[in-house]
Order: sequence, then structure tokens, then C-alpha cells
Amino acid sequence: MIFRQLFDSTSGTYTYLIASRHGGEALIIDPVLERVDRYLQLVRELDLKLVKAVDTHLHADHVTGLGALRDRTHCITVMGEQTHADVVSMRVAEGDGIEIEGLRLDVLYTPGHTDDSYSYLWGDRVFTGDTLLIRGTGRTDFQNGDPRAQYESLFNKLLKLPDETMVYPAHDYKGDTVSTIGEEKQFNPRLKVKSIDEYVELMNNLNLPNPKMMDVAVPANMHVGLYQDAIAKKGWALSATDAIALRGRSDVAIVDLREKGEREKHGVIPGSLHAPYPRCRNIFAPAACCRSSPRRPASASCSTAPSASAPPWRCRRRRMPG
Amino acid sequence: MIFRQLFDSTSGTYTYLIASRHGGEALIIDPVLERVDRYLQLVRELDLKLVKAVDTHLHADHVTGLGALRDRTHCITVMGEQTHADVVSMRVAEGDGIEIEGLRLDVLYTPGHTDDSYSYLWGDRVFTGDTLLIRGTGRTDFQNGDPRAQYESLFNKLLKLPDETMVYPAHDYKGDTVSTIGEEKQFNPRLKVKSIDEYVELMNNLNLPNPKMMDVAVPANMHVGLYQDAIAKKGWALSATDAIALRGRSDVAIVDLREKGEREKHGVIPGSLHAPYPRCRNIFAPAACCRSSPRRPASASCSTAPSASAPPWRCRRRRMPG
Repeated sequence: MIFRQLFDSTSGTYTYLIASRHGGEALIIDPVLERVDRYLQLVRELDLKLVKAVDTHLHADHVTGLGALRDRTHCITVMGEQTHADVVSMRVAEGDGIEIEGLRLDVLYTPGHTDDSYSYLWGDRVFTGDTLLIRGTGRTDFQNGDPRAQYESLFNKLLKLPDETMVYPAHDYKGDTVSTIGEEKQFNPRLKVKSIDEYVELMNNLNLPNPKMMDVAVPANMHVGLYQDAIAKKGWALSATDAIALRGRSDVAIVDLREKGEREKHGVIPGSLHAPYPRCRNIFAPAACCRSSPRRPASASCSTAPSASAPPWRCRRRRMPG
Repeated sequence: MIFRQLFDSTSGTYTYLIASRHGGEALIIDPVLERVDRYLQLVRELDLKLVKAVDTHLHADHVTGLGALRDRTHCITVMGEQTHADVVSMRVAEGDGIEIEGLRLDVLYTPGHTDDSYSYLWGDRVFTGDTLLIRGTGRTDFQNGDPRAQYESLFNKLLKLPDETMVYPAHDYKGDTVSTIGEEKQFNPRLKVKSIDEYVELMNNLNLPNPKMMDVAVPANMHVGLYQDAIAKKGWALSATDAIALRGRSDVAIVDLREKGEREKHGVIPGSLHAPYPRCRNIFAPAACCRSSPRRPASASCSTAPSASAPPWRCRRRRMPG
């Protein structure tokens, strides 16, 4: 098992790189854009293949590394289903799992800091984002923050984990690297409230200045990288509605890049081929029968829709490598 | 097992708090003066008793917390036998062990960054001080630093540990928290030399500015706290030579506070009582037979001498509590 906690001193952000073995698949949580070179160097040095990059929520204090990591490694980018960030290719919800070779994170929806805040449980470790910090909790005064929701996330979800569960937050500013659920129950001053109303009162009166990076980070994190727009401008992207209309055409193959679990949860696209990303690179190898001519788009990458009212999948056409 | 890595962002120092169990004895490595309150808060919260505070070497970039921790917890302060810091109560050398309840650090003498640089091996973890950093090594251009000695410490001692041994250094400035011996062998650019002469050439041409804190930290760390001088001024301290002259007097009891291993290594003081510190607090409880009157010093705390040519023990008289 490989577990690395990495620190960005500029934003006080902790990033986590995990894998089940050297030579195997890896997953990164809360990467910071300016540190992407270091992450990728470490991934190479540890002989890993980065297949998933996960944010616990849309950060306001640093620009996420999700876009750069996706562009440089073709990893899947993962956030909660509430996210407004574009180009997140896997949207998860309470009860889902985020799997890579040899390990699985259990997805806990823990809103409050933002409405897209998630925590990820990995055995006896929980990655708590900005929901539960070491001797603190994430502020709730912007980005649809809600102290009432956060109280519920804390007291009715995270603090119900076993006391010995190790708490790995997205930030620390005081020099701590880890805590436990038991410690936070006992010693976190924000959790010393007697009622939800007392917590709401406490959080509504913190009077904190906005994060320095907020005006830069939030818009940047809504557009995780720039390539989606570039692809659209080239006419290679299309909406789910447009894609549905293409079904059955002999010159179009719809390839569903989602994982098995996503298809089971959100539904199979009739007539589509299934080639879970990133394994599709092997399926679409030069000698494979599905290879298209450069002028005829052969695949559609699909992600689940952000809300129940939208069509169940969105597509963008892409030329496959080779 | 309790293991906490704590970070001082001002100096980029990692401090380690370790213990075998909640409620048991704890040991701290490379504490920073300004963080002592936080360490002690954590010690209380984890229900620990701090019994030893250890520095890997005399630091030039921050003031050690050893003095403050000793004053506030009565812990034993530990450094290598070469140290010039006063008031270090246990001096260790290659092959020694630093023991607390339920765990032992094996002492490795790894000079080069300074002539008093030590590493401490704890099972599959090694605390390398400034000798081996993550993808770096400690500079060798002051405080009796010696690149030739450091090469030997690295290549003939630390890098001979098993590849999977986790490396926990005293500093990191780039956001890493841990590495392994195997990784450092492969990827540490300072270790990519073909000979000791090449390493010496490399280290002698780094042309680094002195640490900002050096002029403050080095003198401060030579005097670990102020209480030794204060005790001497009150006439409560005496030299080993003076103490030897007092042996046999009916109004003086010499109490040897060293651990069993120290007595075995450095020799027993004839006629002394043995009450290993900090357990002597129990032995000298108010009801105990050894209790003295406030005006008649009843005990002498002893530490081993810094060199073979000095008398084998030094004493200072102290009034015992109670």
C-alpha cells in the first residue's frame, strides 16, 4: 500500500496520492495546480499509473490540478454530482465507490462548507476535505455553504465513524498532519456545541475575510482546464440531446466510457459500445477493428448528468489517438 | 502505536511525537521552541506523558524546544555525545538505544551535516535529521560539517537500511512528508555521485547563504533553556570534581538519575543511590524516607560526560519537589 500526504505551503493544502502497490494504478485527492509537476514526478518514481484525480469540493483557495492531470495523464476526473465544474468525467454521490486497482474509496456526501463537499472513506482513513479540519471545520459563508447542513454532515456522518479512524483533511494551517475521529469529537472546539442552532450561530459569526485566491480560484475551478472549450470550438463536442439524435447512424459509433457501476446506476445508452476509460486506449489500439479514419469521429466520451432533470448522459465527440 | 508528524512552517521543520499507546510514555524528536504549546496540548489530548525530548543535532535554523519541554514536563533531554549544548541530560552514541515504555529507537551516528548529527531507527521508520532529506542532503558547510563524513553516513549507514524503510527527515521545503530508503537511493540527485570525491566536490560548491536564524539559533541551542545558569548562581550546581569530594559525607546523598543502560556503559558512581529519572519523582514522594529538609539538598542529577577525558559523570545539586 502506498500513501503519500503532500503539502502545498502557499494554500496550506494537503494532497493525497494513494495506490495499492508499486507498478499499479494510483488515485490523487485534492491536487493543486502549481504542484502538478511534483505529483507526476512522484507518480513516475513510484512506478504508478495515475487513473483518477478527485476533488473533495470546488476549492476557493487554490486552483485545482484536476485539469492539468487529466490533460497530462488522461486520468478520470472525479467530483460530487452537485459540482458545477465542467469536464468532471465521473460524478459521484453518497454510497458510491471510487475504485482503482486494489482499492476503493467509499463516498460520503458531507455538504456544509459548500454544497458539493464530499468526504472519502478508505478503510481506517477518511479524507474530509474542508468539512472536518484538525481542531476546526470549514467555513460555511460562501459557495452555497450551509452551517446547518455541515452540522448534519459532521455529527450524523463523520463523527459516527469509529473513533480510531484517521482524519486527513484538505487543509491545515497550524502544522498538524493527521488526527482521529475520536480526538476531534473530544477536542475540536467547533464541535463543542450543544445544538444545531448553537453551531449555526457560531459559524454565522466567524466574520472571516474571503480567501485571497477566491476570485481567481473559483472561476478557474469551474473550468477545469481549457480543452473542453477548444474541443467544442472545433465541432467535436455535442450535447446529449444532439447525441441521442445520432443514434443508429451507420457512420457514428457511440462509445460509453463510463465504469460498470456508473452504467448500472445511471442507465445504459442504447446501441452504445462500452469501453471503460482509461482502458479504452487498449481497445482502440491501432490494430483494433473500431479504429476510425481521422475525418470520421469514432467515439463519444460520456459522463453522467449533473441533475435528475437533465438527460442521463452527455457526450462529446473525440478523435481517438491512433 | 501513536505517530504524529508535526510541521513548523516558519523553519520547514518536521517534529515527531511517538508513543506505544494512549496513556503511556511519549518521546518527541526535533521540537521547535515556538510550537511547544501545541506539542504539550497534543500530549495532554492524547493522554501521554512526555518523558524524552530528542534532537537529531544542534539546529542552526530554529531554536530547539528541548529546554522548554524539559522545564515544563521534566522530560529527559537527549542528544548525541558530541553535543556542545548544555543541559542535555542523556548523551547517546552509535549502537545505543533510546527507550520509553513500549518502544526503542536505535541510535545511528551519522555525522556530516554537523559533527553531532544522529539518526534514529524505529522499526521500519528512520528519523534522519538533516543527514538525509527527501531528494536532498543536509548542507555540510558549517558547524563542523564534513561532506566526506556525510558520504560515509549516507552510503555506508543509512542507505544500507532496507529499501522499504520510511525516511522521516527533520526538514522539507517542497511539500513532501515521507520517502523511503529505496526511493532516495534511486531518485535523490545528491546521491547520484560515483565517488566520495565527487560528493565532496558537489557539497563544497553549493554556495548557499547561511540560514536566516543561524546567529540566533546556534547560540540559543548551545544553552538549552536558562535554568542551568540560574541553578548554578544559587549555588545548587557543582562540578563532577567537587561532587567526588563530597562522597561519603553523612549530610550528602548522591543520587544517580541515569538509566540502567547509561550506568552500565559509563560506570556506576560509588556510594550513589540509583533513581532513574523521571521515576525518581515517585521515589522521592513526600512520604519517602529520603525526603530532605528544604535547606539541605538531597539529590544530585547526573549526566554522562561529553568526552572520555572528562570525569565519567557530572552533578548538580537540586532540591527535590516536596
